[in-house]
Amino acid sequence: MPEFMDVHHDMAGLTSEQLAEAHRADLAIQSEENVDFKHAWADPDSGVVFCLSEAPNEEAVKKVHQRAGHPTDEVYRVPLQA
Amino acid sequence: MPEFMDVHHDMAGLTSEQLAEAHRADLAIQSEENVDFKHAWADPDSGVVFCLSEAPNEEAVKKVHQRAGHPTDEVYRVPLQA
Repeated sequence: MPEFMDVHHDMAGLTSEQLAEAHRADLAIQSEENVDFKHAWADPDSGVVFCLSEAPNEEAVKKVHQRAGHPTDEVYRVPLQA
Repeated sequence: MPEFMDVHHDMAGLTSEQLAEAHRADLAIQSEENVDFKHAWADPDSGVVFCLSEAPNEEAVKKVHQRAGHPTDEVYRVPLQA
């Protein structure tokens, strides 16, 4: 299954609890789109959040994030890793 | 030690071998700046590369990437994870 890194902006001031809740919201529905969100990293100062997932395609990642209430158009397929 | 996610752009067409070589160039000198590059993900279509590291500060991450030949100014401290 391809892996994806997606990026959210404008989340400055995000707390650990809010990140955990947003991640739980993804996990709660991800199986409906065959997505597996593996990890999220957030910088509350700049408001940038990175999410790593496995998914059938970019659209599935976008759909889960949209349905969970934090849409993003910035989704990158990352087939190369080191 | 704080963790950081940094982002490189304009790397479209990057190959697996080039990513591995760039990562090795970081690893070869990272101890001089007390940085530990843990993983890199690349999208050769859009040319975006993400690097996860542990480092004493943002400047140390920038310095290793600069010395290794692939500088970036986009380094985020990511204290929140899920």
